[in-house]
Amino acid sequence: TLAAPAIAQENQKITWRLTSSFPKSLDTIYGGGETIAKYVREATDGNFDIQVFAAGEIVPGLQAADAVSSGTVEMCHTVPYYYVGKDVTYAMGAAIPFGLNARQTNAWHYYGGGIDLMNKFYATQGFVGFPAGNTGVQMGGWFRKEINTLEDLKGLKFRIAGLAGRIMSKLGVVPQQIAGGDIYPSLEKGVIDGAEWVGPYDDEKLGFVKVAPYYYYPGWWEGGPTVAVFINKEKYDGLPEKYQSLLRTAAQATNGDMLASYDNKNPPAIRRLVDQGAQLRAFSQEIMQASYDSAKEVYGEISAENATFKEIYDNQLAFKRDAYLWAQLSEYTFDTFMMIQQRNGTL
Amino acid sequence: TLAAPAIAQENQKITWRLTSSFPKSLDTIYGGGETIAKYVREATDGNFDIQVFAAGEIVPGLQAADAVSSGTVEMCHTVPYYYVGKDVTYAMGAAIPFGLNARQTNAWHYYGGGIDLMNKFYATQGFVGFPAGNTGVQMGGWFRKEINTLEDLKGLKFRIAGLAGRIMSKLGVVPQQIAGGDIYPSLEKGVIDGAEWVGPYDDEKLGFVKVAPYYYYPGWWEGGPTVAVFINKEKYDGLPEKYQSLLRTAAQATNGDMLASYDNKNPPAIRRLVDQGAQLRAFSQEIMQASYDSAKEVYGEISAENATFKEIYDNQLAFKRDAYLWAQLSEYTFDTFMMIQQRNGTL
Repeated sequence: TLAAPAIAQENQKITWRLTSSFPKSLDTIYGGGETIAKYVREATDGNFDIQVFAAGEIVPGLQAADAVSSGTVEMCHTVPYYYVGKDVTYAMGAAIPFGLNARQTNAWHYYGGGIDLMNKFYATQGFVGFPAGNTGVQMGGWFRKEINTLEDLKGLKFRIAGLAGRIMSKLGVVPQQIAGGDIYPSLEKGVIDGAEWVGPYDDEKLGFVKVAPYYYYPGWWEGGPTVAVFINKEKYDGLPEKYQSLLRTAAQATNGDMLASYDNKNPPAIRRLVDQGAQLRAFSQEIMQASYDSAKEVYGEISAENATFKEIYDNQLAFKRDAYLWAQLSEYTFDTFMMIQQRNGTL
Repeated sequence: TLAAPAIAQENQKITWRLTSSFPKSLDTIYGGGETIAKYVREATDGNFDIQVFAAGEIVPGLQAADAVSSGTVEMCHTVPYYYVGKDVTYAMGAAIPFGLNARQTNAWHYYGGGIDLMNKFYATQGFVGFPAGNTGVQMGGWFRKEINTLEDLKGLKFRIAGLAGRIMSKLGVVPQQIAGGDIYPSLEKGVIDGAEWVGPYDDEKLGFVKVAPYYYYPGWWEGGPTVAVFINKEKYDGLPEKYQSLLRTAAQATNGDMLASYDNKNPPAIRRLVDQGAQLRAFSQEIMQASYDSAKEVYGEISAENATFKEIYDNQLAFKRDAYLWAQLSEYTFDTFMMIQQRNGTL
């Protein structure tokens, strides 16, 4: 028919709602939702209009995935590991302790089978999901006192959630679940001994340096966590193919964009924090190794109970073994040399 | 008018040609051009159709930028440093020796001012440019004999081009310009002593391991080179805004996509190469340091002559100093721990 080409060329008017798991104050991670929406809006002359809502505006931050499953909203921007309470398999879509770094995470998702494996699981939850942001490795958190030995972990009240909390509790840590806004007063009053948040740029805003100046690294529980978009499966399947493709492309562009933004903001932030009195400390080898051993134990326990987790974990583990062999010969040696120059003041 | 909204909604039919600087046999880097075209085509129901041509099909690989400047083709997919013979400023759009790693390169381009600075320069060349791919740090190349000391560099005939060739020639190396297809016979006959190409996945295809088994790392002349799209400025300015935005989004998505693909392909390739007899060697600290000092000398010489280069180099240098300070506290410590596990066989 003569009409067909004209219809095919048209950008249908569609208005969707995206609920973010993040407040606007976390501008970089919250901004990922805005970036996807902007890219999609611009490429369709505003006809595919995704309206972005901060955590709590229409859906509480940690209920974003449920709101997508039920169709309350068409999509959300969230961190998959927020939902490990429903199924620990979610963690594989974001980061697991002692998992992959940010680049490896992307390689595994886009080419190592990660996106397909996760979507087999996400389909059982009523949505599709794609990577749409990464913070890079996070920091290990703020502590009121130095933490040097395994003995120092015993009874330590540390604000940390999910899998890392479970791993640390094997070492005597008492994991605390505390919302972002309540961390500062809890640290100040000594209700907790330490807290992890994100990295220098985001942590600076909450002022932890004033009440818990020992700032530890690395945040081994998230080497490069993926922030994802979840899209209600029925709504996604009902989209014109061109809008499906555009959404995927916008998500992939955003995935790199957020990491680039954090990588630009964190370096000056860490210098400002040191000026404000932050005492930088690396976790001791003793604590790192015990945490690692505890993590392996936990993965064994979960794998025995959850076949879906096991399938995805085993796939990623094989990938990780090759990735960390190659890394030794490639960027690591380049970075090592450059860091020596940085320390020598010869950059 | 009543007609306006309908016109705005329409996806105009546009056919463009993209010439790649790469042969199809380099499937990953060549594939970046295909990926952009695919993302754009899909998001417009085929109406914005970018036809991709391999190097030599319509334009020789190293003349891609010229073909865009002159409007022979609308766009190309190339590595900016190929054009340092015209103006060394081009190198800043890709990678300079002892520059940034891949993540830092992205952070500098998208948020550190890199894209804007480069486009001020690209405008003088008749095009706009955006990052659209990255190989990650490359390898240091294949050598017939071991290269341990500065003495070993004297008179060494090494296939390498551009800035790195100039830097190495200060150390007595005799840089050789040889096209990809001619490297193997030149190495085999001993016409040259060594050659750099890309990384394990691409290098394996050319079979260098059989004639020059010493495989050095890192390729300090490209810590994370950006592959770019150049788009004729007049053609870009004449595009509907939605197509301009879509092109930028597709390029940014491709930028991450290529790196993820290389990061997936290189790890198994390095293992295969070792099985085939590759002898892995790190460049000695002596050679690294002398090369670094030589590079700084060269940047001083160029900066004295070329104000545009100097402006962009100085901007990136300030970024680099902060970036390598931060890296020490963040991913480097995470990666170090994970590599220890890899070496111990406990991953």
